[in-house]
Amino acid sequence: MNRIPTQIELIEARKRLANFIHQTPVFQSKAINEIAGAELFFKTENFQKMGAFKMRGAMNATLQLSEEQQRKGIATHSSGNFAQAMALSAKLLGIPAWAVMPSNAPTIKKAAVASYGAKIIECEPTLEARENTLIQVVKKHKCTSLHPYNDYDVIIGNSTATQELLEQVDSLDIIIAPVGGGLISGTAIAAHYFSPSTKVIGAEPSLADDAFRSLETGIIQPALKPLTIADGLRTSLGDKTFFLIQKFVQEIQLAEENEIIEAMRLIWERMKIIVEPSSAITLAIVLKQKEYFKNKRIGLILSGGNVDLGKLPF
Amino acid sequence: MNRIPTQIELIEARKRLANFIHQTPVFQSKAINEIAGAELFFKTENFQKMGAFKMRGAMNATLQLSEEQQRKGIATHSSGNFAQAMALSAKLLGIPAWAVMPSNAPTIKKAAVASYGAKIIECEPTLEARENTLIQVVKKHKCTSLHPYNDYDVIIGNSTATQELLEQVDSLDIIIAPVGGGLISGTAIAAHYFSPSTKVIGAEPSLADDAFRSLETGIIQPALKPLTIADGLRTSLGDKTFFLIQKFVQEIQLAEENEIIEAMRLIWERMKIIVEPSSAITLAIVLKQKEYFKNKRIGLILSGGNVDLGKLPF
Repeated sequence: MNRIPTQIELIEARKRLANFIHQTPVFQSKAINEIAGAELFFKTENFQKMGAFKMRGAMNATLQLSEEQQRKGIATHSSGNFAQAMALSAKLLGIPAWAVMPSNAPTIKKAAVASYGAKIIECEPTLEARENTLIQVVKKHKCTSLHPYNDYDVIIGNSTATQELLEQVDSLDIIIAPVGGGLISGTAIAAHYFSPSTKVIGAEPSLADDAFRSLETGIIQPALKPLTIADGLRTSLGDKTFFLIQKFVQEIQLAEENEIIEAMRLIWERMKIIVEPSSAITLAIVLKQKEYFKNKRIGLILSGGNVDLGKLPF
Repeated sequence: MNRIPTQIELIEARKRLANFIHQTPVFQSKAINEIAGAELFFKTENFQKMGAFKMRGAMNATLQLSEEQQRKGIATHSSGNFAQAMALSAKLLGIPAWAVMPSNAPTIKKAAVASYGAKIIECEPTLEARENTLIQVVKKHKCTSLHPYNDYDVIIGNSTATQELLEQVDSLDIIIAPVGGGLISGTAIAAHYFSPSTKVIGAEPSLADDAFRSLETGIIQPALKPLTIADGLRTSLGDKTFFLIQKFVQEIQLAEENEIIEAMRLIWERMKIIVEPSSAITLAIVLKQKEYFKNKRIGLILSGGNVDLGKLPF
């Protein structure tokens, strides 16, 4: 059954995570504020452990397992950041972890997962192969599989980024987070409880506009092999993330690929921080509709900074 | 006459600059500490205004001018960061500024200088043409020329980065700063007064080892068109910077080009911040001689983050 996480669940997740994650800083850039004509507050989850907000959800879900479940270990299938987040969560608790990764996953991502001590099980690069392999792993090791986003403990864990942001910055008119699914739902539910007057906007690539279309039609639309550079935003919605987006996200706005790349370059050049395209899209949205955002106080969730430096779009 | 700036001069510069520069944060990386086998504290001058420590020296020198001098304006010749620092200092005080830049200076640097409102005067790309053109500019406008490093007010301004670092982090065994000249002298004089037990090491590219050779021979050796990727470190020493280096820098260590690039990549990938090669050399020095630095508490001055994203060495 879909449900709305309670305020107490959010507050408890924050306490639970306190010793396991970084409270990331909020950055501002005078230069970018001038370009945007608005006051922007960047929540720098690129500085989070393993380089992305996903550490929050993975760690929270792992900490919610029983002692016996923890002892048997955790598993997930992922080509990207969530496998790293799961692996590091397991490492911090000293429990075993298995990551099912497609054979064509970037070497750098596999190396990162392995460096946290998780065992990598390779499979064919299809969703079916990934899911089937994960089922085998769970059967064999009696471990618990974690879903990267369609899971309340993950969503609630992700909400802690926005809980922090709302303490770090007063009176935000708007918060923008990438869609995705797991981050925007956590963001929206945190704003709902802790700053109900703050509007939550999702930022989505035009090339991967499944959430935009889902919200319009009221039915989850699948992401059809989207080729956006924002690789973290290629996933489809889950029933739980969609339910929360429908309830608490006021609007989804779209950005083109060149707009995402330009915003990314602006953040790199002016703020001297490394963010991935999936993060930069939040700024792209602002720069695309300056009139709409004029003079507003806007929080932007920079979701992560894991990019392949050998393959930059500049 | 060469002289040693006093402790009071350093303290006063810090007060003078308080409203004009950022107190930059100190970053740590567990991953890089593990790789290095030491405890590293990165002073992030890449987050300084205009993206480099040079803002400190330029602003301090400008603030030390008389009201009349300020009104008439300031000028410098520079192909890089110092022209930007001078231009922004002038902008903050609302005074005119002229930057003599070689005709082959990168467009991005010229654009940055112009964006701060300084007038750019182009000249042939030789030191002689630059100096002659600057003399003409000073004559014409009766403005004051600022030297990018061989100037006590600039050096004292630069010292404020290390004054901050020594407040932000206790008990540093070692501080490493790039050479250069203007930054390492400021660093060394600050350590001398505020943490005399801290050893100061200069980091210099093997391809631009003029300071290393100067220290060995006791005579300033010219930098002979060095082609190092660490473009901020291609300059020669001045008599004032050399005097302070001789007095207060315990040692200069050299790094190869590939070591600088590897260290830069490590900082980008693990810390998610953008630093220029001239900054990364400080980490390269540590990684090159791990035994030497083992278990030490080491401050590293990351001098700046102004890189051309279109020309990365990865």
